[in-house]
Amino acid sequence: MVVTTNLRKPLISNMKNGKTYIGIDIGGTNTVIGLVDSKGKCLKQKTFLTHSKEPVASFMMNLEKEITRMFNQNGNYPSGIGVGVPGANSITGFVEAPGNFNWGRINLAQMFMEKYDLPVKIMNDAAVAALGEIYFGAAQDLKNFIYITLGTGVGSSTIVNGKIVTGHYGMAGELGHTKIYPSNRMCSCGKRGCLETYVSANGICRTVFELLSTEKTESPLNNYSFNNLSPKIVTDFAHKGDAIAIEAYKYAGKILGEKLADAVGLLNPEAIVISGGLTAAGRFLFESMKISIEENLLQMHKNTVEIRLSDPDINYAVLGAASLLMKSVY
Amino acid sequence: MVVTTNLRKPLISNMKNGKTYIGIDIGGTNTVIGLVDSKGKCLKQKTFLTHSKEPVASFMMNLEKEITRMFNQNGNYPSGIGVGVPGANSITGFVEAPGNFNWGRINLAQMFMEKYDLPVKIMNDAAVAALGEIYFGAAQDLKNFIYITLGTGVGSSTIVNGKIVTGHYGMAGELGHTKIYPSNRMCSCGKRGCLETYVSANGICRTVFELLSTEKTESPLNNYSFNNLSPKIVTDFAHKGDAIAIEAYKYAGKILGEKLADAVGLLNPEAIVISGGLTAAGRFLFESMKISIEENLLQMHKNTVEIRLSDPDINYAVLGAASLLMKSVY
Repeated sequence: MVVTTNLRKPLISNMKNGKTYIGIDIGGTNTVIGLVDSKGKCLKQKTFLTHSKEPVASFMMNLEKEITRMFNQNGNYPSGIGVGVPGANSITGFVEAPGNFNWGRINLAQMFMEKYDLPVKIMNDAAVAALGEIYFGAAQDLKNFIYITLGTGVGSSTIVNGKIVTGHYGMAGELGHTKIYPSNRMCSCGKRGCLETYVSANGICRTVFELLSTEKTESPLNNYSFNNLSPKIVTDFAHKGDAIAIEAYKYAGKILGEKLADAVGLLNPEAIVISGGLTAAGRFLFESMKISIEENLLQMHKNTVEIRLSDPDINYAVLGAASLLMKSVY
Repeated sequence: MVVTTNLRKPLISNMKNGKTYIGIDIGGTNTVIGLVDSKGKCLKQKTFLTHSKEPVASFMMNLEKEITRMFNQNGNYPSGIGVGVPGANSITGFVEAPGNFNWGRINLAQMFMEKYDLPVKIMNDAAVAALGEIYFGAAQDLKNFIYITLGTGVGSSTIVNGKIVTGHYGMAGELGHTKIYPSNRMCSCGKRGCLETYVSANGICRTVFELLSTEKTESPLNNYSFNNLSPKIVTDFAHKGDAIAIEAYKYAGKILGEKLADAVGLLNPEAIVISGGLTAAGRFLFESMKISIEENLLQMHKNTVEIRLSDPDINYAVLGAASLLMKSVY
């Protein structure tokens, strides 16, 4: 493969502004590749479908094609590859069978290194996004914070004294699979009642359907099948005053606030940084979340934690993945 | 006061084996004072009632009397005072109005320093107990663990990369006031449904009374008033096969396991160290707790966390409080 040869022998760099790095953000739905300079500027970016239910070999072939297309255009020679992926273990380099993927347990770092003669680092997707926020985003002045991203699933990472908490075995940071009571909602992880079954794209739709089944409120949402519903549609109806749509986000905010309050009690951070597609719901989600956080905090923790939103126009996971090669921080 | 004068002018030390330190463990029921050498040996120890519902000035007077009695006997001159107390903020030195105390928000470190011309350090009671375990107890080989103590209340502390997590404002480590669903049990902190209302001395008794009210099981526990009941009595009946007593601990273990699983997902520790009076229930509490932890963990976290029990014959909070003056670790 041409690109493999190019990447194996990076004889010349045509970048005038120093080194560049490949940052890859592998999500359950999309994968984003970026070429990032050392100031956190994304020089090129490409998104393609992950097809996470197909074998990883198929994903790696698609990835290679995309990299070929991107880098053949004007021959940039990156200095390393950083990868953010759900279930990644930064100590072993393995990806530990994340819920939304049919990849099993694989040594993804090794697979990259066999293909590209470049330094490769791999980390949990939420942790690299938190790194992106630390270096280039909303967390540049923060030393102790909780990062949470609300999208297809719930990603999260905790930062203590300026460092990502990786845990003893490299698999820390999970808030998305903490338990909600009483709940019987099946989660993609195989457990029931996880936070992710409420506060995610899918979770919002499930709550709409639960409300439609328990209430007798008239709502245009009664015209949608589950497969045709999305958080964007729910948000649009919330803006139009639909009671079910408003209640669905309010409920998600309440539950999210309860779980964040638990984490604030444990870690006493200065801030919570929130990103992901669900943040587009704005006040419909965050008003009840903020009330719920404060209601559930001990007196000594009340009014100590700031809520910050990530800039939705920047992919901080790609920047953070690239930063794994730039700096030594975790 | 003689002892004050003695402590203000420590001209001579009669300790042959180097420096000694005063470690004080202030609990909701009892306060323990110890004279500790630098190897973690407790040379003298004294326990007295805290009377935490009375003003702090009254407590300080009682404390001074006890210190006078202890140290006048053979004139040891300690090199500093370390204090473990619920709600302590190690950054500000303040005690932040803990639930079981009527002391309000007080600068306890300052109160000690005004009375004794010695270095004084103050920290959350669970955090100093965790330090005691790190230096002299069950956690000597651990770098990442959760410490939890089950007594009058629930104390907890988390240790990441060998250091106590104090949080940005010095008030991290709270697991006892995370929320249980569905629950309406009033907690001493003013919230409802806290873990502490289930997994503490008082919590076990409350569960016994809840079970007696919901079941029709014959049990000798029907002969006890709430004020006459204690975890020891419940444990004794559990050993005799009483179904209510067994179920009360089983339920506490299940709930504790769920909350510990949440914390394990967030911090991915190598172990959980458990201490406190409730550990005397042994298998009645821990069998269901272990099952519940594993049931509630993500696949990648299953079977990664070791459970260790503290030695019930040693007061590690006193040793840890004294160690605040010996070493710089947090």
